[in-house]
Amino acid sequence: MPVTDPAALLERTVRAIAPPDADAATHAAARQDRLTKPPGSLGRLEALATRIAGITGQQRPRLDRRLVVVAAGDHGVTAQGVSAYPQSVTAQMVANFLAGGAAINVLARHAGARVRVVDAGVAAETPHSPQLLRLRLGPGTADFTRGPAMPRALAERALAEGIALFEAERAGAGVDIVGLGDMGIGNSTAAAAIVAAVTRRPPRAVTGRGTGIDDARFEAKVVAIERALAVNAPDPADGVGLLAALGGFEIGVLAGVYLAAAAARVPAVMDGMISGAAALVADAVASAARACLIASHRSVEPGHAAMLEWLRLEPLIDLGMRLGEGTGAALGITLCVAACRLLDEMATFEEAGVDDSDDVVPPES
Amino acid sequence: MPVTDPAALLERTVRAIAPPDADAATHAAARQDRLTKPPGSLGRLEALATRIAGITGQQRPRLDRRLVVVAAGDHGVTAQGVSAYPQSVTAQMVANFLAGGAAINVLARHAGARVRVVDAGVAAETPHSPQLLRLRLGPGTADFTRGPAMPRALAERALAEGIALFEAERAGAGVDIVGLGDMGIGNSTAAAAIVAAVTRRPPRAVTGRGTGIDDARFEAKVVAIERALAVNAPDPADGVGLLAALGGFEIGVLAGVYLAAAAARVPAVMDGMISGAAALVADAVASAARACLIASHRSVEPGHAAMLEWLRLEPLIDLGMRLGEGTGAALGITLCVAACRLLDEMATFEEAGVDDSDDVVPPES
Repeated sequence: MPVTDPAALLERTVRAIAPPDADAATHAAARQDRLTKPPGSLGRLEALATRIAGITGQQRPRLDRRLVVVAAGDHGVTAQGVSAYPQSVTAQMVANFLAGGAAINVLARHAGARVRVVDAGVAAETPHSPQLLRLRLGPGTADFTRGPAMPRALAERALAEGIALFEAERAGAGVDIVGLGDMGIGNSTAAAAIVAAVTRRPPRAVTGRGTGIDDARFEAKVVAIERALAVNAPDPADGVGLLAALGGFEIGVLAGVYLAAAAARVPAVMDGMISGAAALVADAVASAARACLIASHRSVEPGHAAMLEWLRLEPLIDLGMRLGEGTGAALGITLCVAACRLLDEMATFEEAGVDDSDDVVPPES
Repeated sequence: MPVTDPAALLERTVRAIAPPDADAATHAAARQDRLTKPPGSLGRLEALATRIAGITGQQRPRLDRRLVVVAAGDHGVTAQGVSAYPQSVTAQMVANFLAGGAAINVLARHAGARVRVVDAGVAAETPHSPQLLRLRLGPGTADFTRGPAMPRALAERALAEGIALFEAERAGAGVDIVGLGDMGIGNSTAAAAIVAAVTRRPPRAVTGRGTGIDDARFEAKVVAIERALAVNAPDPADGVGLLAALGGFEIGVLAGVYLAAAAARVPAVMDGMISGAAALVADAVASAARACLIASHRSVEPGHAAMLEWLRLEPLIDLGMRLGEGTGAALGITLCVAACRLLDEMATFEEAGVDDSDDVVPPES
């Protein structure tokens, strides 16, 4: 059932986004220093758990209910020959997600996370399945080198559907942490266009090889993005307009998930280039949403570094991944879980009867 | 019950170490390219699983039975004021490991690994517990600024006890992957001395702040290492002699675990500075053991980078950790498990009915 009043849901959600809970973060940081380890010796895992305490408002957050949202959509710009794969692969990979055979299925199982697959707007038919949310906002976006990727009303609806999806998951099995992934042939072109529009860097500097394209396709990709920016002249301060101009449907749904997660105080783990572009859209809609973002990995896509710098986020891992689907986000979730378990489950010096450092007790020698 | 003939066990183990299985690795690499993802898009996770296939000799290795060995020992060099913590903390932390409240307990639970704690030679009394292997090869090592840390026969025995421990774990609950961790006040001094001796770098260049020492302690640490190298003149080609000269008991036991893991074709995941020094000792005893080593994380200890370069290993994560106990190794195990599950559980293009890239099929557009 489609969202009845997208604008109202979007507005209500944006208004609900609050800043991090400084008190919870302070308590968490103080606990870190009482745990049985030299102060700071768990490195970035300490800062990560402290940050999650601030996001969630809980002094010792548990991240037991884990969700990965994988949104799929097609892109009219594939007509410009920007991808090494045919558009049919998007729907085929949706079927693979539903069968449990894709990389994200494996890594979500590994992370103890359930996967929610969304057909945000896939060109080919996708299976009817209780596991698949079939929004199908369009048969792929329009070719953004010739005009906007979608009408403004549809962009608003994509955001609202992402919000509704997240709220339904929260009301159902519950969500303590969410990872965001994508599938869509051509969507690294849309993502690079969003990065160029927001950061005002030249398209060539933020465009990568996606699934692994040759030089000719790479040139076609850069030219397509340059044209899209010239034709649509998106205003990076207008998040809905940005999404309408450049797409895609899956990016819009993921941006809605970020907004809903921020409103619900749930940490939202980014994946690579495409889920990052969705974060830029969410940030343009409501900059307060930025506080709930956690960068999982550094993609090899050059635009990814640009967006992380823009969002002032440092990724946790750097393994040369460039698959999407939420694969990096799933690994990021496992690190968030590890960091929060350390904060919650480790004994303090007092509890364990361990002498603190010689700031307190002089060495025996 | 102590090992009856340490020299024979050591020799038998070293002789059993075989090179990686090139055939299994080749099969694994070929499967990677048939899985439903652009080739290479899982980055270093692909190379990691392929390498584990070579180590184990299995084309699709499963790493279900996971072990972390945490060896504890004290160091006579603490008399030189090299640590911020009193020696009593080693035994207190052993008790904390047994109670399940230390960082390694939390991260091992997170990784689905069991923890085996070893008192290799702790100065203070440690609890009698079925969970604790009490080898107690000495009440801490001797102060290596005045002579060898231990007699040569004891170094050989430490290695043999590590081998026996690993073999017992394998014969018991089984071991598909092992992480190696340490606890011992002062042991980053012994580890830095080993790194300096093996890589022939100046002690100052490979010495760090350990648990977090001030400038005066840091100077004392550098001077102690310089003296140890001058007094003992260890031969880096003689692994047993190196261990005898510089210690410690826990480093010797861990080096034995590496040798036994290599002989058993089990991937051995290093932690930070101390388990790395043990890997250098194992490598000096039998360079063929190097093939089973997996570097988990990059410690902030400067000597760690030097030893990874020496061993030609690239760590998987870099989170600013410096705790030891096997904490980095436990996170490394989770990544090894993820990499192998991807290799084993993902569907191939044929199985999933997904079109391969346009190397095979031209794009629809």
